[in-house]
Amino acid sequence: MLSKKFYDVLNYEGSVSITSWTKAAPHVTNTWNSFLVVTDDERLLAPAAGMHSLENDLKENNHVIVTLAAREVEGKNGYQGTGFRLEGTAQLVSSGAEFDMMKEKYPFLREILEITPESSKQLL
Amino acid sequence: MLSKKFYDVLNYEGSVSITSWTKAAPHVTNTWNSFLVVTDDERLLAPAAGMHSLENDLKENNHVIVTLAAREVEGKNGYQGTGFRLEGTAQLVSSGAEFDMMKEKYPFLREILEITPESSKQLL
Repeated sequence: MLSKKFYDVLNYEGSVSITSWTKAAPHVTNTWNSFLVVTDDERLLAPAAGMHSLENDLKENNHVIVTLAAREVEGKNGYQGTGFRLEGTAQLVSSGAEFDMMKEKYPFLREILEITPESSKQLL
Repeated sequence: MLSKKFYDVLNYEGSVSITSWTKAAPHVTNTWNSFLVVTDDERLLAPAAGMHSLENDLKENNHVIVTLAAREVEGKNGYQGTGFRLEGTAQLVSSGAEFDMMKEKYPFLREILEITPESSKQLL
């Protein structure tokens, strides 16, 4: 589902937005493009240090919307920049081989945020 | 309300997330740091070309959450990178002096998105 262009964006630094929500309200947390690790089966892993509002939301609703972009990657029709919006589900993971791999890479993490995209849309 | 650090972030390119929501679900749309114009009274103006989901949400709920960041700007405790989350209200504007100014700068715009922040939090 993730296109070559999506991986191109990850080669450049930028801020990633992660929106979660319950009936009460949404919350938006962030990470960096460079912090995302994509697994072979196209899940996204990110180090979670704070993310307490996200954690609370996920208990009620595990859907998330993720956006990320890079001005350096050419978009549609030669546009200078492109970005993606992913929708999917997420969970926090606090043990296992992927947790250990991420903990080595990002010692500051408390848990890993695992996002399973259900759709990915190139916006530009 | 907007700190010097906030303006520093705007000097670097990056993607801005704008989350709107109704009882049904949130939507996330994006713009670039470089597209934001801050007025003297600290409203944010952005060119709106698409943003139809945002427009629909604003009819029901005019609150938005905005995030933006720059890896190039020093955060707290010497961290390499900082970002902000703003909460406030928004409206789309299709005439007036600010519309004309933005239209000249961004000929592709349909309307301008005007965001009035009620809070601004430095995240890193």
